[in-house]
Amino acid sequence: MKARVHVMLKDGVLDPQGEAVRHALGHLGFSGVEGVRQGKVIELDLAATDKTAAEAEVKVMCEKLLANTVIEKYTVEIA
Amino acid sequence: MKARVHVMLKDGVLDPQGEAVRHALGHLGFSGVEGVRQGKVIELDLAATDKTAAEAEVKVMCEKLLANTVIEKYTVEIA
Repeated sequence: MKARVHVMLKDGVLDPQGEAVRHALGHLGFSGVEGVRQGKVIELDLAATDKTAAEAEVKVMCEKLLANTVIEKYTVEIA
Repeated sequence: MKARVHVMLKDGVLDPQGEAVRHALGHLGFSGVEGVRQGKVIELDLAATDKTAAEAEVKVMCEKLLANTVIEKYTVEIA
């Protein structure tokens, strides 16, 4: 079973990496870019076969390791 | 209009960051994790209103800046 986790900075948190990308795109002539946020995507191959259990386990992984929940939010998709 | 870009290392390319996450998850007791790949997600706010044009523009951004197409693959979603 595959899981995909998105980890993004929370909305109020300054994202210097995203700002750098926005400036770079502006310099390249892409004037229609109003905002950029950059985050991480983590794809997991899981041995689990039960979707609900897998989702619960991945959420624990996020809380313990994958996301810094003080400044980051995460979403989990199971496929 | 919002666009979301996923940038992942191509399948044959070694992903040391993903491997590090896999090992760390193993040490934390998550034994059912068989593989981890880590990539970037970039969320763009675009001034464009035409979906097809926006998607084409974001693909050019990927080719020019957002992805290193020698070792990385990307997907574009327009929402």
